[in-house]
Amino acid sequence: MRVAVLGTGLIGTSVALALRERGASVWLADADPESARLAAHLGAGELLPDTLLSDDGAPLRADVAVIAVPPAAVADTLAAAQDRALAACYTDVASVKQLPVEQARARGADLASYVPGHPLAGREKHGPAAARADLFLGRTWALCPEPETSEEAVAAVTALVTACGAVPMRIAAVAHDRWVALVSHAPHLVAAAMAARLESAPPQALDLAGQGLRDVTRIAAGDTGLWTQILAANAGPVAEVLAAVAADLAEAARMLTDGDPKSVAALLEVGQAGAGKIPGKHGGEPREFTVVQVVIPDQPGELTRLFDAAGQAGVNIEDVRIEHSPGLPVGIAELSVRPAEAGPLLDALEAGGWPVRR
Amino acid sequence: MRVAVLGTGLIGTSVALALRERGASVWLADADPESARLAAHLGAGELLPDTLLSDDGAPLRADVAVIAVPPAAVADTLAAAQDRALAACYTDVASVKQLPVEQARARGADLASYVPGHPLAGREKHGPAAARADLFLGRTWALCPEPETSEEAVAAVTALVTACGAVPMRIAAVAHDRWVALVSHAPHLVAAAMAARLESAPPQALDLAGQGLRDVTRIAAGDTGLWTQILAANAGPVAEVLAAVAADLAEAARMLTDGDPKSVAALLEVGQAGAGKIPGKHGGEPREFTVVQVVIPDQPGELTRLFDAAGQAGVNIEDVRIEHSPGLPVGIAELSVRPAEAGPLLDALEAGGWPVRR
Repeated sequence: MRVAVLGTGLIGTSVALALRERGASVWLADADPESARLAAHLGAGELLPDTLLSDDGAPLRADVAVIAVPPAAVADTLAAAQDRALAACYTDVASVKQLPVEQARARGADLASYVPGHPLAGREKHGPAAARADLFLGRTWALCPEPETSEEAVAAVTALVTACGAVPMRIAAVAHDRWVALVSHAPHLVAAAMAARLESAPPQALDLAGQGLRDVTRIAAGDTGLWTQILAANAGPVAEVLAAVAADLAEAARMLTDGDPKSVAALLEVGQAGAGKIPGKHGGEPREFTVVQVVIPDQPGELTRLFDAAGQAGVNIEDVRIEHSPGLPVGIAELSVRPAEAGPLLDALEAGGWPVRR
Repeated sequence: MRVAVLGTGLIGTSVALALRERGASVWLADADPESARLAAHLGAGELLPDTLLSDDGAPLRADVAVIAVPPAAVADTLAAAQDRALAACYTDVASVKQLPVEQARARGADLASYVPGHPLAGREKHGPAAARADLFLGRTWALCPEPETSEEAVAAVTALVTACGAVPMRIAAVAHDRWVALVSHAPHLVAAAMAARLESAPPQALDLAGQGLRDVTRIAAGDTGLWTQILAANAGPVAEVLAAVAADLAEAARMLTDGDPKSVAALLEVGQAGAGKIPGKHGGEPREFTVVQVVIPDQPGELTRLFDAAGQAGVNIEDVRIEHSPGLPVGIAELSVRPAEAGPLLDALEAGGWPVRR
């Protein structure tokens, strides 16, 4: 597979790295040549040549071009790439889908070879240096073919999505935009509005911050220019969600001031139910793991002994969290295993002399 | 040290477990005897005897009594414990401090032996079965002595906090309540208001959910009854923060609808600055780690080989994250090490044949 990545930011470079690991040949281009060069240095591919000819003069073409530019630049980039016959088919990764599709149609771009797409993956950091080959592992990747889109193009882009380790999900552009407003765009602005209250807070207040505040505000650290564009491009659905959240919070503030916490209790109840509806970390069919806790001395070799005992018991450790206390000589390792393997693991660890918690 | 834990929910039982690991003797009591018995079965201590006498008839007394009940029940529990001379000094763990202090003073409780406290730690789960001995490791634990509080009592409770692995922080009750409204109570309701929007969303929408939504809404899964009481007990400062967040979100919704994203961009900028003010995960002096990524086959024994190589290189792995893709036979392990140890670790892993990313 030969792929052209147009736009070597976080997402474009991560797509390139993921595909390179699967043996694809990747061309890289960016409006900022320094960014494309940095991505090439990171091993994401080669710079897109000016003329698409092989050594013997035959025309060259990518199988898929991935347009990884901000939403408002997708249609222009698509049309320019199609003008030079860069690829057999095209996809983009913008967080909104109706805007680039409408602009592409208005510009007279070829919609048969264009599969609008959106990987549900990201980081708070941006640029090619933040890219990761594993960014899309297990993540949903929305594909929003239009009526004109050919099934051949859909099949080629679906293969690319799968090669990146993501899970393709077909959905109409209008439904996509409505639902990402709810599950991604509005939450981003809610996190920003909460984080904005911290900007003028004294250090003493922030010393009281716990993990909850970090989680609520984490995504507010994202690229503000890009997010302004995303929010503006999906303004209607986002505004609808934000207005509802604002109304609930204003009502809660009034009720608290009036000494009547009934509507606050109701909001907490509905919020708890809503949080419970989000599927598990791995998406699709959730894999449920049992967590085994074990206390380990904070020194080299201890984790080896631990994993060795697990391996000898034939137990596959699916995930590990280690919690350290700054001042203490021990840590707590939390080992996630399949439920049926928790018993054998506990037996093996106890036999090896580790303090475990059953 | 002998400690009495009054209230064996998540926090009380976690305090008991933490102190038991440090060799303390712990008495357990709860308004629900089943809860206290469950905590005892978990190894958190022994049930509080009805009569506080030793075998030879001498009176027994705890060094510290930890009152781990909801905010509105603290003063009554304190007064009852003081009436029977349960302990030399007393502390509580409620998330608000002015309310229990005022109620204790109104009830005529002895304030000299009472050190109001609040550990900044929690989980979405509650009850004794969710308790963990490591819940307070590295967390801030606010202590709010009143003018009447004796320095002896402060010293005893500070020793208890340190024994739990937490970092004591002295702060006036009024400042505490104002700042936890900002960094804990208001964020809880903001998370709930966002999560509440998901309650009636179709499964298709939730299939598009990414890590950002999970983080923003995680704490909304907490105990709604307890949180209603906490929010009501700190109504004024919480309402002030919520009203400001609601106004910013309502303004953002209006600007998006009007097609003018300027104030949205401004809110994102201030939010980014605010998120940047939160101290690092470990609190106090942040320990900065370098992350080394390595691809591993998803089968028993591979992690052993990996940690063995690290141990032989003398490198102490401080944290591990393993990311799996449901369909792929490999995972990505992210190993956190001290910056100076990243080079030796990469060398050792490459020598062992692992694909690493430099």
